[in-house]
Amino acid sequence: MIKAEIIAVGSELLLGGRTDTNSIFLADMLAEQGVEVRFKTGVGDDIDDMCAVFTQALKRAKVVLVTGGLGPTVDDLTREAVAKVTGQALGLRPQALRTIQARFKLAGRTVSANQRRQAFLPSGADLLRNSSGTAPGFSMKWKRCRLFCLPGVSHEARKMFSESVVPILVKEGLVGCGIESRSLQTFGLIEGVIDERIQGIVPESSGLRLGILASPLGVSISLTSDHSDSLSHACVGEGKISKSHLLLEQYVKLLSKVLGSCVYGFDGKSMEKIIGESLTARGLTLALAESCTGGLIGHRLTQIAGSSAYVDRGVVCYSNQAKMDVLGVTKSLLVRHGAVSAPVAKAMAQGIRKRSKVDLGLSVTGIAGPGGGTTEKPVGLVYVGLATPKKTFTKEFRFHGDRYMVKLRSSQGALDILRRWLFSLPISDE
Amino acid sequence: MIKAEIIAVGSELLLGGRTDTNSIFLADMLAEQGVEVRFKTGVGDDIDDMCAVFTQALKRAKVVLVTGGLGPTVDDLTREAVAKVTGQALGLRPQALRTIQARFKLAGRTVSANQRRQAFLPSGADLLRNSSGTAPGFSMKWKRCRLFCLPGVSHEARKMFSESVVPILVKEGLVGCGIESRSLQTFGLIEGVIDERIQGIVPESSGLRLGILASPLGVSISLTSDHSDSLSHACVGEGKISKSHLLLEQYVKLLSKVLGSCVYGFDGKSMEKIIGESLTARGLTLALAESCTGGLIGHRLTQIAGSSAYVDRGVVCYSNQAKMDVLGVTKSLLVRHGAVSAPVAKAMAQGIRKRSKVDLGLSVTGIAGPGGGTTEKPVGLVYVGLATPKKTFTKEFRFHGDRYMVKLRSSQGALDILRRWLFSLPISDE
Repeated sequence: MIKAEIIAVGSELLLGGRTDTNSIFLADMLAEQGVEVRFKTGVGDDIDDMCAVFTQALKRAKVVLVTGGLGPTVDDLTREAVAKVTGQALGLRPQALRTIQARFKLAGRTVSANQRRQAFLPSGADLLRNSSGTAPGFSMKWKRCRLFCLPGVSHEARKMFSESVVPILVKEGLVGCGIESRSLQTFGLIEGVIDERIQGIVPESSGLRLGILASPLGVSISLTSDHSDSLSHACVGEGKISKSHLLLEQYVKLLSKVLGSCVYGFDGKSMEKIIGESLTARGLTLALAESCTGGLIGHRLTQIAGSSAYVDRGVVCYSNQAKMDVLGVTKSLLVRHGAVSAPVAKAMAQGIRKRSKVDLGLSVTGIAGPGGGTTEKPVGLVYVGLATPKKTFTKEFRFHGDRYMVKLRSSQGALDILRRWLFSLPISDE
Repeated sequence: MIKAEIIAVGSELLLGGRTDTNSIFLADMLAEQGVEVRFKTGVGDDIDDMCAVFTQALKRAKVVLVTGGLGPTVDDLTREAVAKVTGQALGLRPQALRTIQARFKLAGRTVSANQRRQAFLPSGADLLRNSSGTAPGFSMKWKRCRLFCLPGVSHEARKMFSESVVPILVKEGLVGCGIESRSLQTFGLIEGVIDERIQGIVPESSGLRLGILASPLGVSISLTSDHSDSLSHACVGEGKISKSHLLLEQYVKLLSKVLGSCVYGFDGKSMEKIIGESLTARGLTLALAESCTGGLIGHRLTQIAGSSAYVDRGVVCYSNQAKMDVLGVTKSLLVRHGAVSAPVAKAMAQGIRKRSKVDLGLSVTGIAGPGGGTTEKPVGLVYVGLATPKKTFTKEFRFHGDRYMVKLRSSQGALDILRRWLFSLPISDE
């Protein structure tokens, strides 16, 4: 297995508040190529710290991917750090400069001295074309390691990876068979219960690595084939099915069986994608009535390209007035049970279904917090309603966590009810 | 300045697809305590790799924060790795076991052998109580370094940091004056233009570090005071205003001036928070009509606690039928101009404002992609409408990026129009 290391450069990554999204998709894309990421490091725009991290990575990994620090500003120091660590001088690359100049000319601007800095690369490095931005990337062979430096802007790094990094990895034989890994995603059971249920199902002698991971969207279970096995199996891409592939399939089936209807998906496929496919296949349309989730369910469903075919509309009814006006929930129902109640969830789902003339109406009403909770109706109390052609279902949830967690869990809870109905599963957990 | 290092343990963090949220808020919380994070490392559940990372961190940092690997499953190896690296034996802590047993008893369950693993800690380590989960954390002094091991579950780690880590840092004098840092967030100008505009404003002689960072929500500019300065200034908390504090204030003002109305916020305050405060202060109510953003604007606005006071309702009108039914957009307008057009954005904003009897109606219609684009109306073409008591505004945007990027940028563009109106700024960029 080829060992790789990802380094994200930028002081902002160390100050909190910001997700290092590049490391995430680069790890994904490397895994697809059968390259195993062993370490991910975030380092600030400090030349000494950068040199320390680069030196170590070049020593222990076969592939090193750096993102960030290639821009025009003075705190962009990746070029300098690589030059220092490898002992190569930085020199102006006329081709890189011409590309930058052409890009600027199109925008009616001229290249400033700072922008010119981007055209200086360590000697011996190969230029990587940036097809969607200014900063060129570069790649170089250093001792036994192949180093790639990509821009920090995500869509530029992503494109450069596909267009330039993959061909080099393939050419130099730095791709593997793909790490064989499978996963199951569940919703509705806590980690401890899952751990107990699957106890003993995947023995250590299987050579598979089992991982359990809890998140607001549920608990996922991963199975990864032991790397030593990679020697004994041929790549699937070459037309043979590996031993570990069959083994994984067998254990995924066993795990699915004991976990039952709580398993909503496999291999990272999202709940919204699964629901979208089912709605599309059956030609069903959906409308949403969201209260505490504030639009999150609509946002999630419409992340899927083509969702306009089945998501007819959604309403966010925060106020009682809106619930009456838009969904036809009666005042007496709101007074008698309160906005956060099963009867109101039911009326919201039926109201949106009827008024938008769709097949399915899905509603959520709850208390996201941090305020608004009482002893009787605490923060995290959420009701979901699902109105279908024949019957309306409701379900009560009690979630914990901060406002965002409650919103996220509520959206997942609502989508899970819909999934259960679509796949004819019991609406309650097993 | 105290130097710290964050290590996130878990193979899932290296496989892509998953954000390491713990590192983000831990960096935030450490910065608040005046502790500077120099490195962030992600490492898999491999005992050798973990030992390598722990050894290095214990050598170069004064504070090391590890998250993850403390759970009950066999791939949770943080306890073992710390024991190995420090040469301390793992032993059962009766107090930790009793706490776990009590927690399980409440849930009507008994402690399994795997769950018991969590009560074994390296000798010499102090137990850190987990007030919201099962896995206890621990802390130990190792040579010149203070090590903390926290659970991987975010809300547990967050609570343990406030309840247990901060008191130890304070007691041992491991907190600083707080890194003095300010930032400005802009929307509407590209990175290159900003770079040119602010050229020369913050000279190197100021001792401040300037950072420019582009994201789908806009470009932010950060200013951080040079660390050597921390010797010459007293902590603000002690009643004195530091030199660097005044210096930062002065440069933030200068930068704001040249960047003008594109600056929407300071110090990481979100667009939705700024808008929420302005709506609250002025007692204005808002309703949303979203097409291509699919609920994202509603979701963002309702992330703010108390948003129910000003977000009256929102509708997601994906279909033309919904635009006609719910917003009263006329068929002839849709036929004449198409759903993605300034006149339709205008009609949507006016429709939602009128029908929900609110002060302000905000609408978005656009092509999020990847499909649906034409030469005339490409993917990324977005129109925003804002209906106010006296006048309705519309604005055209042309965004790039994938479906999520277009949605995110569209939501920010729409909120920015609202901000500009609320603060009496020109609706167009300068």
